[in-house]
Amino acid sequence: MSHAEWNWIADVRRRAGSHPHVRVGIGDDAALLKTSGNVLVTTDMLMDGVDFIVGQTPPELIGRKCLAVNLSDIAAMAGRPTGAVVSLALPKSHGRELAEGLYRGLFKLAEEFDCPIIGGDTNSWDGPLVVNVTVLGEPTGAGPVTRSGARPGDRILVTGPLGGSLPSLRHCTFTPRVPEARRLHQAVSLHTMLDISDGLASDLFHIAESSGVGLEIDARTIPIHSDVDPSLPFEPRLKHALNDGEDFELLFCVDGADAERLLAKPPDGVTLFAIGRCVQQPGVRIRVRDEMKPLIRAGWEHQFG
Amino acid sequence: MSHAEWNWIADVRRRAGSHPHVRVGIGDDAALLKTSGNVLVTTDMLMDGVDFIVGQTPPELIGRKCLAVNLSDIAAMAGRPTGAVVSLALPKSHGRELAEGLYRGLFKLAEEFDCPIIGGDTNSWDGPLVVNVTVLGEPTGAGPVTRSGARPGDRILVTGPLGGSLPSLRHCTFTPRVPEARRLHQAVSLHTMLDISDGLASDLFHIAESSGVGLEIDARTIPIHSDVDPSLPFEPRLKHALNDGEDFELLFCVDGADAERLLAKPPDGVTLFAIGRCVQQPGVRIRVRDEMKPLIRAGWEHQFG
Repeated sequence: MSHAEWNWIADVRRRAGSHPHVRVGIGDDAALLKTSGNVLVTTDMLMDGVDFIVGQTPPELIGRKCLAVNLSDIAAMAGRPTGAVVSLALPKSHGRELAEGLYRGLFKLAEEFDCPIIGGDTNSWDGPLVVNVTVLGEPTGAGPVTRSGARPGDRILVTGPLGGSLPSLRHCTFTPRVPEARRLHQAVSLHTMLDISDGLASDLFHIAESSGVGLEIDARTIPIHSDVDPSLPFEPRLKHALNDGEDFELLFCVDGADAERLLAKPPDGVTLFAIGRCVQQPGVRIRVRDEMKPLIRAGWEHQFG
Repeated sequence: MSHAEWNWIADVRRRAGSHPHVRVGIGDDAALLKTSGNVLVTTDMLMDGVDFIVGQTPPELIGRKCLAVNLSDIAAMAGRPTGAVVSLALPKSHGRELAEGLYRGLFKLAEEFDCPIIGGDTNSWDGPLVVNVTVLGEPTGAGPVTRSGARPGDRILVTGPLGGSLPSLRHCTFTPRVPEARRLHQAVSLHTMLDISDGLASDLFHIAESSGVGLEIDARTIPIHSDVDPSLPFEPRLKHALNDGEDFELLFCVDGADAERLLAKPPDGVTLFAIGRCVQQPGVRIRVRDEMKPLIRAGWEHQFG
């Protein structure tokens, strides 16, 4: 929140309004947020040409997405969001229009999730649009759900169908699973949870590595989103579900009895699909046509050549 | 902390190590930080070609600066830093070398200020380097010092000489005034404080507007840094001190008695210069050669054309 406080910040401040937990808001050197003690923190940087395309993606949806991906990270910890700070590097051409659209999308989603925007840093430059959002939150119930608690014997569940989120713009319009995560957290003991951003295949590897277990999934049980071209044969459609990423559904592991209970009676508004099991033998495997094969790690991972 | 967790994150995680206040660190969907309740939050986005120049500024100094400007914002609230998250958009060419250098600079300063790096988001793209750092902190003593508490009659003080920080690279190598701010906060009642980032002139306007007071400074008392070309005449040198910005010295207001006490016996390691007074008459004015003139607002403000 150093230099680059333009006059328009006054508009943002008015729109941000007041919130009982915000003791110092936009416009000072730092914001001051009242918390219950343990604070969740997550940050995501999104760039033109990578995470959205200026000129094709409406600015409101860009702003919405930049906050939503962070809210989804808070959901993955079964947390509740408490505040957000927003940094912008605006292109010099049409920067102000872009910023106004971005903030409309940001504020709308922030209000829906009771997550006040408490500060930021607005800059302009000769480069393309870059947005960074940091969201703070607080853990709920039995505490945060990490990636490291899966155990052999656990069932693997997912909260919605996967694949095709990019062409349909669902990667911008998705609703972060914040209340769903909390209801699951209240209902059962969640051993591990994350939100599917890199893609199911890649995110299964994250659980396997963080928890030190093997994972086996069954191709027939993986829910494929209707956004994936239904005229394609099964295997290409499956690949979209495994690798497209940016689904932002919750992927989690619970023991067998809790899985049965959840599947028999899911918490209000929560859709569930059981897609596999945790095992002792390391690695991630997929059963396709009665044959268990190693799953190929793919998806949105960025590589250095 | 969605996609883009490359393998090198494991190195960063090892380097980040453990800290008694960090309950979940790098590598999960969100970090979990133990706090005392009230949390300061500040964020800054720095871009190649604006805040540093890749190829000219050593990567270690870029990383250092990106954390230092945020620590300086925490200092301006008289706070103590408690944790930082770091987002990178790395250019595809030499991205990894750049990231390693950046993180060396970041970690070194983070250790000096006991501010653990608890998470981040690392991306690569076709654009120039962008770094965003968000720092969390906690208020100390009587609570955070905002920009809005200056009163007519207050003296205006600054903690060091100003100007010339860009050519000398002091804008990257400066040491955030975190302990100095806390010692001042313990010694007297700080009515208002900020760190000089936009430039003294511009930052005086911030105090005038936030506090609803007028400010009058005396040109002869403004400390001009030795980084400003000493062969220049006085007025051009003064302009550098007023407008260059990125000094990251503390600018604060205290009542007359506290000012006398501080100037007579500054807290350990704190240098002080009294440069003017707060008055009722709105506006910001400067006395030059026995004439009081309106101060021109200038500095690092970004404008939209």
